Amino acid sequence: MSHAAAVWDTLQKLRACRPLIQNITNYVVMNNTANALLAIGASPAMVHASEEVEEFVSIAHALVINIGTLSPSWVTGMRLAAAHARTLGKPWVLDPVGAGATPLRTSTALQLLGMKPAVVRGNASEILALSEANRATRGVDSMDSSSSALESGKKLARSFETVVTISGAIDYVTDGERVLHVENGHEMMTRVTGMGCTATAIIGAFLAVQQDPLLAAAQAMAVLGVAGEIAATRAAGPGSLQLHLLDVLYTLDEQSISAVRIS
Amino acid sequence: MSHAAAVWDTLQKLRACRPLIQNITNYVVMNNTANALLAIGASPAMVHASEEVEEFVSIAHALVINIGTLSPSWVTGMRLAAAHARTLGKPWVLDPVGAGATPLRTSTALQLLGMKPAVVRGNASEILALSEANRATRGVDSMDSSSSALESGKKLARSFETVVTISGAIDYVTDGERVLHVENGHEMMTRVTGMGCTATAIIGAFLAVQQDPLLAAAQAMAVLGVAGEIAATRAAGPGSLQLHLLDVLYTLDEQSISAVRIS
Amino acid sequence: MSHAAAVWDTLQKLRACRPLIQNITNYVVMNNTANALLAIGASPAMVHASEEVEEFVSIAHALVINIGTLSPSWVTGMRLAAAHARTLGKPWVLDPVGAGATPLRTSTALQLLGMKPAVVRGNASEILALSEANRATRGVDSMDSSSSALESGKKLARSFETVVTISGAIDYVTDGERVLHVENGHEMMTRVTGMGCTATAIIGAFLAVQQDPLLAAAQAMAVLGVAGEIAATRAAGPGSLQLHLLDVLYTLDEQSISAVRIS
Repeated sequence: MSHAAAVWDTLQKLRACRPLIQNITNYVVMNNTANALLAIGASPAMVHASEEVEEFVSIAHALVINIGTLSPSWVTGMRLAAAHARTLGKPWVLDPVGAGATPLRTSTALQLLGMKPAVVRGNASEILALSEANRATRGVDSMDSSSSALESGKKLARSFETVVTISGAIDYVTDGERVLHVENGHEMMTRVTGMGCTATAIIGAFLAVQQDPLLAAAQAMAVLGVAGEIAATRAAGPGSLQLHLLDVLYTLDEQSISAVRIS
Repeated sequence: MSHAAAVWDTLQKLRACRPLIQNITNYVVMNNTANALLAIGASPAMVHASEEVEEFVSIAHALVINIGTLSPSWVTGMRLAAAHARTLGKPWVLDPVGAGATPLRTSTALQLLGMKPAVVRGNASEILALSEANRATRGVDSMDSSSSALESGKKLARSFETVVTISGAIDYVTDGERVLHVENGHEMMTRVTGMGCTATAIIGAFLAVQQDPLLAAAQAMAVLGVAGEIAATRAAGPGSLQLHLLDVLYTLDEQSISAVRIS
Repeated sequence: MSHAAAVWDTLQKLRACRPLIQNITNYVVMNNTANALLAIGASPAMVHASEEVEEFVSIAHALVINIGTLSPSWVTGMRLAAAHARTLGKPWVLDPVGAGATPLRTSTALQLLGMKPAVVRGNASEILALSEANRATRGVDSMDSSSSALESGKKLARSFETVVTISGAIDYVTDGERVLHVENGHEMMTRVTGMGCTATAIIGAFLAVQQDPLLAAAQAMAVLGVAGEIAATRAAGPGSLQLHLLDVLYTLDEQSISAVRIS
């Protein structure tokens, strides 16, 4: 089966199952990621309190943990949820937003990375920071190209037995041995806040219906990239791009999915 | 006076008075509900800290309490605000997001329901969960039809002396005796996050200018439904639906209000 | 150099430098202000935890502190960040949302105002409240015209050695001696939540590249006003206004900047 056919297959499963995706994510993107998950056919829930995260994990099909707008009181809920997901064998994905920018972020991300996420997705600066753990990044936007982080990402994937996804002009998805390249997307997407967070959330949704986390991550990145490409052709700027992206995710058909470029 | 004429009358009062609506709501929808309230003519404020909620209630015209993205530290502020609203005789509306999904949500919602909201609005799963209190729901999207929850809703309304609004393809609004049906809305609205929360916020605004909470709730549901119908005709998907909905709420005229279907 | 030429010069610097703007802001507007900062060419980061705000200030180029959705636990981070910005000589801007509405807001805003922001931006009610400190405002929307607050604003600017920006139909920007008037903007902007917060965030971005805070504030207000005027010509209501505003901020050229009205 071609990558395009496999992506279309996963997307159809997702729409049929409407998996419940639990998100412990940041204030900036909660609305966008919920809308992206709804548009693509999943059922999102934003549930973070330590008093209920474990019960919620037990009804969710996959879990997304994102450390943007981090505060220590949220880390407790993140850890409880991740541990419970691992216990129940439910897949979860980590977004280490701003890892490297401050010690709080780097140490929190590493701690969570040790709790067996199926996938971790970050930009090159974040992945490099996690790998080197002593490297400073600059804010939350990446200063490094995704290829420069590939070797670090492979090492990280092997150390933590996870799939590392490095977002960039080309996205790299690796389990430490295999490497998939995703060449979809549009430059204007970098001008919409939380696009990386949306990618991570969609990886969460794909993990619910695609057993192989390497494929789930690559397919999710490709789908968001294709949607971004189509949306960009209709957009006059980042405001309308964000809007069209949701419309496109909602209406993606086999024809548009044929534009995925995974290799 | 026909329902349509009564709705138009309430809407005109709302626009003339610009009531101050205090919201203690969830992170996901704060922006959307504030924008919906502004678009329809109210003045929203998002104020939740226990140190100031009571003072704010005393200047607000109505209060909205929504337990999405719940955490125990917020419940204190919700309880203080609800109690003060009751003391001052100001109307308030409860949105028991995810009641039934976890004990924290069910017990918090029941506790608040005991504090005399004028209206409680939920989907069928939430209303059933509150009524049965031992029934599990699935996440925050409803798995039950609104009609299946109607008898439970009537019982709940009588027990708590409140108006219960059950959202769905048909919305039911009941004080335990009377039942109003609202048949406006569009299926695509379920693909936009927080549409139920927006409905609750608009009920809050209507409570500020319409004394009868049964009518306030039904009229608010009808107005949002009509706006959604018009917006859907212009929308290519859930992204543009959300945008057009705000534009339509801002420009609703007597002609468009004539499409309300309350019975 | 004319004001228009100076604004264009600042905007080009901003786009070239992509300054990192740290925001400690409210839940309602985090997404919008991040998107507005990205659209205009800055790199936003929303970082508020007291455990990391100081480290982040040291890599940021300017800081925005906004007290909407205030809670005491956030004030610690705001104070640490403001103090560290002052120590490092980095400019910061204060948005005293709802000052006057409750004692918590007024006292927090005054406390922060004593920590040497380069600019404080509020509506007339907020500036009057800060100046009189015993005056009640009504929610978060202004009931006063900006001109009525000008004398209070000048006094406040002198007392705190800051630049006071009073938003309204005409914006006033004063350091206590000089007064600049900005006559850009569109009435429909008042129907989009957090437009004032967006103005404050853009002032933050301009402070990173324009040394004179009086000019930075006036130029930022003018740029947002011009963008709002253009967006309003394309908008059918506040929903589409918000969208077009981001598109326009992204595509502003020298021609559109020539419409700035600063005097």
